[in-house]
Amino acid sequence: MSETRIQAPDGVPFIDVTREFVAPRNLVFRAFTEPDLLVQWLGPAKYEMVVDTYDVRAGGSWRYVHRDGQGNEFGFHGVFHGDPSPDSWVQTFEFEGAPGHVALDQLRLVEVDGRTTVLTHSVYQSLEARDAMVAGGMAQGMDSGFRRLDALLGRLVPVA
Amino acid sequence: MSETRIQAPDGVPFIDVTREFVAPRNLVFRAFTEPDLLVQWLGPAKYEMVVDTYDVRAGGSWRYVHRDGQGNEFGFHGVFHGDPSPDSWVQTFEFEGAPGHVALDQLRLVEVDGRTTVLTHSVYQSLEARDAMVAGGMAQGMDSGFRRLDALLGRLVPVA
Repeated sequence: MSETRIQAPDGVPFIDVTREFVAPRNLVFRAFTEPDLLVQWLGPAKYEMVVDTYDVRAGGSWRYVHRDGQGNEFGFHGVFHGDPSPDSWVQTFEFEGAPGHVALDQLRLVEVDGRTTVLTHSVYQSLEARDAMVAGGMAQGMDSGFRRLDALLGRLVPVA
Repeated sequence: MSETRIQAPDGVPFIDVTREFVAPRNLVFRAFTEPDLLVQWLGPAKYEMVVDTYDVRAGGSWRYVHRDGQGNEFGFHGVFHGDPSPDSWVQTFEFEGAPGHVALDQLRLVEVDGRTTVLTHSVYQSLEARDAMVAGGMAQGMDSGFRRLDALLGRLVPVA
């Protein structure tokens, strides 16, 4: 299993994540953009993931909700920018519990020898907002999701 | 006439702008959000400004076009985040000539003694993108627009 590498360099409000998956990039792109696949891996396993909308085009909106066992809901939404493709897409990210606090994420998929590396570059409105995201357990949440994505991709493309 | 103060600190991908206007903040908010007013001041005076859409609400889109004397058009668009009000609103900013290169702008209006200070905080995806924006004459463009906004606000609210 690949390692999730998370970099949050001192003094700049960026988080960069690198993670390799054993799958071609078109499949990884589908897993990141098709609701039926997304709900099978994104976010902490303890939440039910419900996709409200996922309109992957320049100017299109996305929204999903994480629902816990007590019925509490945590909504997230944003908008796609650029012309989304496996080469690159940009999306804003806003937790509905903190309106107006927005991150800007760029995702790129690079395929070498049938394996795909996901590179994400996230920009925050302040160093404090970036640090809060790191302190809030982002790494564990992402890694947990990516392990489920490993399993999903393995089911979709059995490796010889 | 007030001075436009632009700060682009070393090492972080931010641009912060401060500018005072002689008008109450509800009027300044209208000038920043109503197309009929916006076209009278935003951008360099040499361009005709055409607002395509300006849907000022969480998740709403905006788009405008600058048209020069030769009929060349330069489009810009983005999406509003947060719950836009004079206290604070957030909007993405994307030049259609460079899709996927996005800035995240927060604007706040603070009124003291009938004068309103506009504070903008813009975040770029890289230091290089921020530096390119500064090098591209952003300060002159903003200052030119703000002088026209001074005049517009003066016509709307004659000062005793």
